[in-house]
Amino acid sequence: MADAVVDTVSSVPVAVVGAGPAGLMLAHRLGRAGIDAIVVDTRTRREIETTQRAGILEADAARDLVETGVSDRILREGHEHEGTVLRFGGRPHRIPFKELVGESVWLYPQTDVFIDLADARERDGGTVHFGVGDTEVLDVTTGAPRVRYTAPDGSRHEIRARYVVGADGSRSMCRNLVPEDRRVRYGKEYPYAWFGILAEAPVSAPELVYAHSEHGFALISQRSESVQRMYFQCSPDESVDAWSDDRVWETLQARVAGEDGFRLNEGPITDKTVLRFRSFVQEPMRWGSLVLAGDAAHTVPPTGARGLNLALHDVKVLAELLLRALGGAGDAALDDYQPRALQRVWRAQNFSHWMTQLLHTAPGGSPFDLRRQLGELDNAVGTRSGRTYLAEQYTGWPASSRG
Amino acid sequence: MADAVVDTVSSVPVAVVGAGPAGLMLAHRLGRAGIDAIVVDTRTRREIETTQRAGILEADAARDLVETGVSDRILREGHEHEGTVLRFGGRPHRIPFKELVGESVWLYPQTDVFIDLADARERDGGTVHFGVGDTEVLDVTTGAPRVRYTAPDGSRHEIRARYVVGADGSRSMCRNLVPEDRRVRYGKEYPYAWFGILAEAPVSAPELVYAHSEHGFALISQRSESVQRMYFQCSPDESVDAWSDDRVWETLQARVAGEDGFRLNEGPITDKTVLRFRSFVQEPMRWGSLVLAGDAAHTVPPTGARGLNLALHDVKVLAELLLRALGGAGDAALDDYQPRALQRVWRAQNFSHWMTQLLHTAPGGSPFDLRRQLGELDNAVGTRSGRTYLAEQYTGWPASSRG
Repeated sequence: MADAVVDTVSSVPVAVVGAGPAGLMLAHRLGRAGIDAIVVDTRTRREIETTQRAGILEADAARDLVETGVSDRILREGHEHEGTVLRFGGRPHRIPFKELVGESVWLYPQTDVFIDLADARERDGGTVHFGVGDTEVLDVTTGAPRVRYTAPDGSRHEIRARYVVGADGSRSMCRNLVPEDRRVRYGKEYPYAWFGILAEAPVSAPELVYAHSEHGFALISQRSESVQRMYFQCSPDESVDAWSDDRVWETLQARVAGEDGFRLNEGPITDKTVLRFRSFVQEPMRWGSLVLAGDAAHTVPPTGARGLNLALHDVKVLAELLLRALGGAGDAALDDYQPRALQRVWRAQNFSHWMTQLLHTAPGGSPFDLRRQLGELDNAVGTRSGRTYLAEQYTGWPASSRG
Repeated sequence: MADAVVDTVSSVPVAVVGAGPAGLMLAHRLGRAGIDAIVVDTRTRREIETTQRAGILEADAARDLVETGVSDRILREGHEHEGTVLRFGGRPHRIPFKELVGESVWLYPQTDVFIDLADARERDGGTVHFGVGDTEVLDVTTGAPRVRYTAPDGSRHEIRARYVVGADGSRSMCRNLVPEDRRVRYGKEYPYAWFGILAEAPVSAPELVYAHSEHGFALISQRSESVQRMYFQCSPDESVDAWSDDRVWETLQARVAGEDGFRLNEGPITDKTVLRFRSFVQEPMRWGSLVLAGDAAHTVPPTGARGLNLALHDVKVLAELLLRALGGAGDAALDDYQPRALQRVWRAQNFSHWMTQLLHTAPGGSPFDLRRQLGELDNAVGTRSGRTYLAEQYTGWPASSRG
């Protein structure tokens, strides 16, 4: 008998695979409505907490963290950015989000979003099993799917649920449960990656600086008063070992240099990573009793700062529909999930692709491409309509700008 | 002696090579200010008049034709379009230019712009030599450049000028006078062309319809009550012989089909042409006493309807600066020409490239590209900021939208 192999069996309306922001926020939202969810993740809490993940939250997402009672720490420790700066042609050009579309974004690392959500789950008595192994998702084409896993102590457990949510990130195992001949995967690879650093240095700029240069892209971000996060475009097969601190600073300074004499504040570099990225969408986002959310269903290049926001948007829609489904409407309630999530997903895919192509120099790109990019930057930043178009997408299509 | 080989020598402040809209409008503008120009063209007036060239004029350009006294025929025979329609996902989406940015565009064929300008030159006593041969431009690096040509009767003539303007179109001879090691050519080829037809049929839509479909792009335009101009994306090496009228209509109907049941009014096809296009810019736009204007210096794909407008913008700026140069300021006055012309040129290059990429399906394009295009169309057309961004570029950055 299958049941004989597990030590415990729990029953819960919703089982969630993946304790990232999508999975935990979904459990939090369901919990507030009185619906229990059990979340499992192969990583330990400490592993997730110590993985550096940057984050820009759109205002809606920041408000949701506060208003749904996760935490108001973002208001105290996050930084509201009312705009961002695009540097090109050696000059800074500010996009004043708040003035243009009435909304800001919040600089608040994804790592902190995770900590807030994990703390809230603990505070609210939600069940999250970290550091599990051998996760299996079974019977998703029935109305009684199950999740099995091995606890850190070696014991084996089963969760019986009405729905399983696959929120297991960009290397999702859950998405493979949609049979190959019933799914479509849309993807695009980019011929560049980001070289990311953490540096012990004072803040160089009060807002994010996206820099276009003929040498390639750079992004100047912030972490705290004394620690900064910066990136520069590199080859996808770049090795961090080839990069001394001096070489990193020289590269970054060259990419942000301009006639205004802008210079980055330098300091010891405590972390160097090569971040590869791609564009990816899998459809359908639901298969029987399995629903995919966040990076498991779609990933975007980081240039448009959309990834975390898309994940949180997915689960906002999904929580509403799961409550309806569990409240009696059944599977039919979930039919709205994919169309509601996907409209934003494809807009965000396009925005992320556009920002990426706009700011990076393609290896083997022609001089025409470079000049056209500058013409596009001039138009997107040098006209009010361009700035508004950019601001609206960057801030996540706030209500004020819809229509 | 060089002079012995010519039958006549004329002296004039400005010699213009090319009697297209750029060359003739420049001569017209200079003539109004009392500065003579002689224009030469290898084509006969009849050849130019019978070449079908479509045309969308931005409001500024239409106003200039009237206000500078060329002709007010555009107001009587042109059609003011207060918007345009983008069809995608089987539905029409209108971009109301006038409402969004306060300006319309005018449907008025380039062939008619040429006729108005040629008539105005004749009326005003301007000199235009059509159908010349063996055109040579000499001594452009001196202050006394010359243009030599053979008249239709075989006689040989020389024009001595202070400046020569190369307005000799996309296959310009003049631009080759800038030495290879002193010029840069920016270019991009596209893996598709347009199959253009003229059909004797009633109007199918009151405004231009740009159609995106998974089978490729189509553009529905108008010529008169009873003659229509339409295009569909084809391979650059397509042969018109392979296309029966039936096949053309079937292709066009499929590309505009949708849930609204939209159908084109069909009729006998009187003209079929394959139109290849590319993006191209040459810098510098001035070399000594030679100045390039219009297609001679830059060409764009037709998708954004920018080509004719860019040419007319070039000569508006150039006429102003030539008057200043000839009025005593000398060559220094022309230093402003390239930067003032090029800002718009690169914005228009980007817009034309964007509209082209947005609406055509690339051979070998991935399903991701197609879905991303639909996401971009949804964002560019489904939000007010997107519509405004598009309208502003399509209408040529009207004054009301600047800043």
